[in-house]
Amino acid sequence: MQIIRPAPLTRAAFAPFGDVIDTDGADAFPINAGMTTRFHDLATVDVAAGAGRPAIAIFRSTPVSLPFDIALMERHPLASQAFFPLAPRPWLVVVADDEAGRPGTPLAFLATGAQGVNYGRNVWHHPLLALESVTDFLIVDRGGADNLEEFSLEAPVRIEG
Amino acid sequence: MQIIRPAPLTRAAFAPFGDVIDTDGADAFPINAGMTTRFHDLATVDVAAGAGRPAIAIFRSTPVSLPFDIALMERHPLASQAFFPLAPRPWLVVVADDEAGRPGTPLAFLATGAQGVNYGRNVWHHPLLALESVTDFLIVDRGGADNLEEFSLEAPVRIEG
Repeated sequence: MQIIRPAPLTRAAFAPFGDVIDTDGADAFPINAGMTTRFHDLATVDVAAGAGRPAIAIFRSTPVSLPFDIALMERHPLASQAFFPLAPRPWLVVVADDEAGRPGTPLAFLATGAQGVNYGRNVWHHPLLALESVTDFLIVDRGGADNLEEFSLEAPVRIEG
Repeated sequence: MQIIRPAPLTRAAFAPFGDVIDTDGADAFPINAGMTTRFHDLATVDVAAGAGRPAIAIFRSTPVSLPFDIALMERHPLASQAFFPLAPRPWLVVVADDEAGRPGTPLAFLATGAQGVNYGRNVWHHPLLALESVTDFLIVDRGGADNLEEFSLEAPVRIEG
């Protein structure tokens, strides 16, 4: 079985797949008479294809533990999809390049509990993978239907810690 | 000095001002082969006026304590603005009806650390008010400028606990 190991989630490594939503290294400036720092423009929300509208949701996710075998990838042809954890626990991000309409070899990243991601439109990714315990995530994606493409891998890929 | 006291934040009480972002009582259904529950369509993100685009930010907010005197309200003519706390601490939401282009008497709500809000476009609200300790919030609003109107109150209004 093919085995992959998570790398730390960094803007540079994740750039081909979307945005890392993280205060670290972000453009920041004071607002509200200095009471608040705004870490600005952390993700490009791209939901307007097919006359879409942005929607906010919360996903409550049952955790997995490593090693974990992934068997399916998905993508959203009409919209980006942003995830941010609402508890400070690490979580797993798994993405793949597109190879002629199907996902290539998956890449895994270990996000900290202070990092979110925004998958670009049409970027192959695994469904949400919480770790340690049930975790809520705030989601920004697209209202409306017909925005999901799934691909079952011929052989599962194992993520090891 | 006029004194107001925070009420619990509920969908019904907050409806004239926008959405409460809360799993409690939300439309929910399983996704990802049952591994995740999606609490769906929690807020109406309305950022497209003036050819806007949605933007994701993080606000890091210095806390206040009660009693706290508010002296200024603001609103965003081109977009809704959603706030969700990234730590499970209560926070304050202060809004007002519009009265001929200026804010009426402020209303205060005490949000739990599991509740966000989405201020409707053009709804008068106070800048972010964290409680207890420095708190990060995830924000969904509008990229671009010229989307802020501020109003200084003739007399401050005191929020008491």
